[in-house]
Parts: sequence; C-alpha cells; structure tokens
Amino acid sequence: MASVMLTDCSSSTTAAALLLRSSRYRVRHSVLHSLRSMPLQFAPVKPILLRTTATINHASASPSIVTAAMAAETSAKIIDGKSIAKQIRDEITVEISRMKDTVGVVPGLAVILVGDRKDSTTYVRNKKKACESVGINSYEVHLPEDSTEQEVLKHISGFNDDPSVHGILVQLPLSSHMNEQNILNSVCIEKDVDGFHPLNIGRLAMRGREPLFVSCTPKGCIELLHRYGVDIKGRRAVVIGRSNIVGTPAALLLQREDATVSVVHSRTNNPEEITRQADIIIAAVGQANMVKGSWIKPGAVIIDVGINPVEDAKSAKGYRLVGDVCFEEACKIASAITPVPGGVGPMTIAMLLSNTLSSAKRMHNYK
Amino acid sequence: MASVMLTDCSSSTTAAALLLRSSRYRVRHSVLHSLRSMPLQFAPVKPILLRTTATINHASASPSIVTAAMAAETSAKIIDGKSIAKQIRDEITVEISRMKDTVGVVPGLAVILVGDRKDSTTYVRNKKKACESVGINSYEVHLPEDSTEQEVLKHISGFNDDPSVHGILVQLPLSSHMNEQNILNSVCIEKDVDGFHPLNIGRLAMRGREPLFVSCTPKGCIELLHRYGVDIKGRRAVVIGRSNIVGTPAALLLQREDATVSVVHSRTNNPEEITRQADIIIAAVGQANMVKGSWIKPGAVIIDVGINPVEDAKSAKGYRLVGDVCFEEACKIASAITPVPGGVGPMTIAMLLSNTLSSAKRMHNYK
Repeated sequence: MASVMLTDCSSSTTAAALLLRSSRYRVRHSVLHSLRSMPLQFAPVKPILLRTTATINHASASPSIVTAAMAAETSAKIIDGKSIAKQIRDEITVEISRMKDTVGVVPGLAVILVGDRKDSTTYVRNKKKACESVGINSYEVHLPEDSTEQEVLKHISGFNDDPSVHGILVQLPLSSHMNEQNILNSVCIEKDVDGFHPLNIGRLAMRGREPLFVSCTPKGCIELLHRYGVDIKGRRAVVIGRSNIVGTPAALLLQREDATVSVVHSRTNNPEEITRQADIIIAAVGQANMVKGSWIKPGAVIIDVGINPVEDAKSAKGYRLVGDVCFEEACKIASAITPVPGGVGPMTIAMLLSNTLSSAKRMHNYK
Repeated sequence: MASVMLTDCSSSTTAAALLLRSSRYRVRHSVLHSLRSMPLQFAPVKPILLRTTATINHASASPSIVTAAMAAETSAKIIDGKSIAKQIRDEITVEISRMKDTVGVVPGLAVILVGDRKDSTTYVRNKKKACESVGINSYEVHLPEDSTEQEVLKHISGFNDDPSVHGILVQLPLSSHMNEQNILNSVCIEKDVDGFHPLNIGRLAMRGREPLFVSCTPKGCIELLHRYGVDIKGRRAVVIGRSNIVGTPAALLLQREDATVSVVHSRTNNPEEITRQADIIIAAVGQANMVKGSWIKPGAVIIDVGINPVEDAKSAKGYRLVGDVCFEEACKIASAITPVPGGVGPMTIAMLLSNTLSSAKRMHNYK
C-alpha cells in the first residue's frame, strides 16, 4: 500500500470536490487488470429495478441532513462482486476443461513483472494463483528494477511468438526509466488481454467495430450491471474519472450499451450536481469516500472502482480499505452498490482469466 | 442531394426529440472530411464571453414563448466558418510555398472515388480545387461503381507506397458490396488524413497519447471554438450524435480540452433537458432544425455540423440548406452560433488540407 489517507465520510462535500480536483491520475494501475466477454451462461441474479421516484427530496440536502434522513430508508442491494467473480471463474474452469478435452489446447497467460514493488508482487502472485485455479498455464518473467526497456521488449517479443501464450500482461507501473507506451504497444494486439492497446480502445469507441479485448476492470463493472439485471439502455450514466484503464473505457462501454454518458473529471466545475443526475454511477478516481450521499440520486446504481486505504486504529494493520464512494451514506440512497472490498476488485482478475480464455478460443477457432 | 425534408423550426419539441430517435447514422459522410492542427499563427478573433447569467428564465419555456421572449434579445455572434477557413487556407498556402522553397517538397493528396454519386463527385471536385488553390498536388482515381474491393485495395496500396502522396482519402460512401472497414483500415496510418483509422481514434481517446490525424469535421469544430476564443476547459459540453466521423471524435476532442462532456444520441430519453445544460453544443445528427430554442441555455455557443436540405419554393433549386439547430430561434438565445451553410462546412476541407500539409511535414521532418 502507498500512503494511508485520513479521509472519511464526514468530510464536507466541498472538500470532496477539491479532492477530485487534486486527484488526477490517482487510479491505481495495480488493481486494474482486464474481461473479454465470454458467453454468459449463468442466469442473472434478481434484477435491480431502478427507483425512479425519490423518497427524499435530495437535491439540496447537505451531507449531514442526508445522513439523518437516510436512516429511515431501506438499504441498497449489495452487488456481490466476490460471488459473481466466483461464478465466472467456475464457468471458465468448465470451459477450459472442455477445450482441453476437445482440442487439447490449454490457455496460457504470460506476466512480466519489473522490480519488487510489494503491491505489484502481490498482484502477480494472485494472478498466478487465479490462473492455476481455473486451469490456465501461467508464465512469469520477473526482471530486476534496473532492467533496460530492451530486455522487457525482448521478453514481450518472445511471448508474442510463443503459440502456447494467449495473453500477455505487463504489470504496471513499470520502472520510471522505461517508456510505458512503447512497451504496451509492443504487445501484439491478439494477445493484449489487458485491452490497453490504442487499437482496442479505438475499436471500443467506434460504432460497428469490435475490440479484441476490453480492459478487465471496466468490463468487470459492466458485467456486474449485466449479472444484476441493471438496465443500461437509455439511462443516464456518470463516470467519475477518465483514466485510460478504467474511466475512459467504462464510459465507452456504457455508451455502446446505449446509456447517455457524462464523464466527470478533475476539471469539472460541479461534479456533485452532474453526478446527482445519474441512474448509474461508476466511480474510478482513487479518492477515499469522495462521492457523498448528497451526490447520489435516490435509486441510483453505484459501481465503486476505488480501493483506498484509510487510517483505522481498530484494524490490526492500522488501516482499512474504502472505495471512492462513501458507502455508509450511499447504501441508504442508492438502489444497489458494490462494496469495497468485495465489489469490483474480484472481478478484475476474473475478467483477465476470461480474456485469456477468449484469446485461446479465437486463436484456435474454438467456439 | 439525397432527400429533401419538410422539417422547419415550427416543428414541436416533441417531434424533434422523436426525430433524434429516428435519425441514427444520418450524418452525411459526404460533408465530413478531416484537421491535423498546424501551428496557428493568426491572432484569434475577438473572444466570445459565455453569458453565464441568463436574461430569460428559460428552463421551462415552451418553444413559442421562447420565440416571443427572444425578440428583445440581441442576436448571437455569428461564427464565420467561411472566413476562418479562408484564413487557414491562406496560412497553408504560405507554409507550402515556404516548404517547397526550403526542402523542395510539395504535399500530395490522393483521392479515391468509386461510382458516380453526384454529391460525392462534387465533393471530390471541390477537394481537388481546394488542393490546387493552396499548392497541394492532388491525385485522383475514379473507379466504376461495380469495381471490386480488391481493385480499391490495390490503388490504396499503391498510394501507401508512393512517397509523393502524403494523404489518402477514400470518398465515402463506398458501393454497398464493398467492406468499408477493410478499405479504410488498409490506408496506412501515416497517410490517414481523414483520421478514421481506429488507431487514431484510440489515441484520441487516451490521455498521454497523440493521434497522427484528427478527423477533419470535428477538428474543424474545435478550431472554430479556438479561433473565436471560446473557453472550453471546465465547461459543460453536449455533443448530439455519436457517429464515428463527427460525434464521437468531437466528444473526445472536447474532453481532451477539459470540457465536461455528455453525449446525447438516439437512445437518450431527455435530449432537450441535457442539451439545455450545455455551455457548448456540437450538433451532428443530420436532422433539419432538430435543436429548438428551448434546448439551448442562454449564452451557449453552438457549433452546427448538420447540412440538411429542406423544401423551399422560393429557392430556384426548390430547397435550401439548414443545420441541425433551428437557427432563427437559437441565434437569439446563444452567445455565438455557426450558420448553415458557411459555418462548419468550409472548415472540413480546410482541415483536410491542413492534415495533408502536416503529414508531408512529418514525413520530411520539416518544422
């Protein structure tokens, strides 16, 4: 974990807006890794009906009034990412077993890790474990922090040419002396399971085009909406944050599904007012508890991508993890919300596995 | 011209909203061709100050009330695209002359036209004339309607390899038996002066990436805002329409300039309400007079991309051209507006010339 912040839900709205302004580029690379949709075979869980008539006149309520008023409200449905991710991993396990039995192909994922950042090492270890659990072969290259860009490129080139590798993932952030753009661009687009290649982003943005892969975290967000039966078409959606790996692809995905999308970012003058118009909120800004109750339209569905450590003396570790949305306030106003942890987080690796499987299927023309 | 519509400003707002719903994919390919920004050497014209305090309480006014109330208002500033395009072409002429004298290079633009559509033939002829007027060499291939896709691809390949060609433009629409996507993808990205390649769109969408070219019409829209000194950063912008060639890149460009952008499209439930929040409106839906006075926030700046023929018995041709915005109403509410014709239209070819010059400069490493 990097720094531990003191921000909690009691911070004023103005302070939260200022936080947004100062939070550019905060979304953590490390929690964000990529879903190529596989055919979804599970029946969705009980659909969430967006509450269209508010029970609180919320528009001008201050956070404290909201908190008081909310006490009488029923709580939002919790969107259980952990459970959905488990379902998806079970589906993938079955698919991989079937594929191996039918055509003898086992999907393979290669991960390149540079340096010894504790969080990156943990994420890579978790990815390897997740691969093993579903039957994906994993290959890892761990290079020292002071490796050259050429060394990284050489390994990527090797994986590009290796037919047993169907997905290549470069763990971010890279060492500061490396050109991230060069390195990510060198992953061949057919193996770009992270969906970070600009050609994939371009196809995602364009009508009538299909990306080969969609970044795991935003695709995981949409998958949660799908599996919970949330209607997207025609809905107002607000994405908070415009990073290349979450905010921008999430907005493009929502627009592909016919939502009317607004993107709120660090230069937005009135994020609270705009967010309050949303039926669906995806918060991906990396700021603890930034979105207060007063930002939320009653009945909205909230997908909280943030994973932020805040000081907590009661915890053995001295901190706990919270999202970008003030959960205590939001869960009394929204109709559904993802928890942190246990919401979007588990979906990211599930989507990476799904993308790797899809890639292997495509390469071997296996349906 | 395709069909002539009867729609005029007197249509009801509801009817206009329905028109949006039925107007998917209406934006005409033929009016839309690509600006790679060249260094802008002209001083901007007098800046437009967005009126932030409205003189009419407009939120709930019906179109007819608005029309009456507006009579007392001063008219919007007219954003003179014809004049700005002329300035840009003059700048390009000077640059090309300097480049020829210094390094002996003359930019070249190749145009591929398939079939004999009257509008396409006119556009190609206008592009050739525009090239000649600034000193760009133009090359044209005119293929019969029943040509094969392979023939088109062969010509593109030839132009891709030809060092005297710095930009390749495939006039759209192509014959229906051809795969537009294959053909556009075959234009090498270094010569994609139309900016239609998904790699260019992807780079446009991503922070920290730069497209080689930006599609001419959306870039022309932003250029008009720049040259008229319209502040974009932090402003609410609404783009109406989400086509690959105008709406989507226009939204991405506005977001790159730190506007807070919402995209309104055929599935948007309340386009009027959302559009009324905008400080800047870019209308690119191809529906005559769809945006009424009641859709517009007083003081907004309006860029109207539509070029729609409507019946006009007084005109010798039997029709006249109007935009997507009801000009008569809008010009009394907005602070500035592009006319149709004479607004965005002339900018498109100017931007194509600019992109071609930029391409030649880049290929010859000439500043």
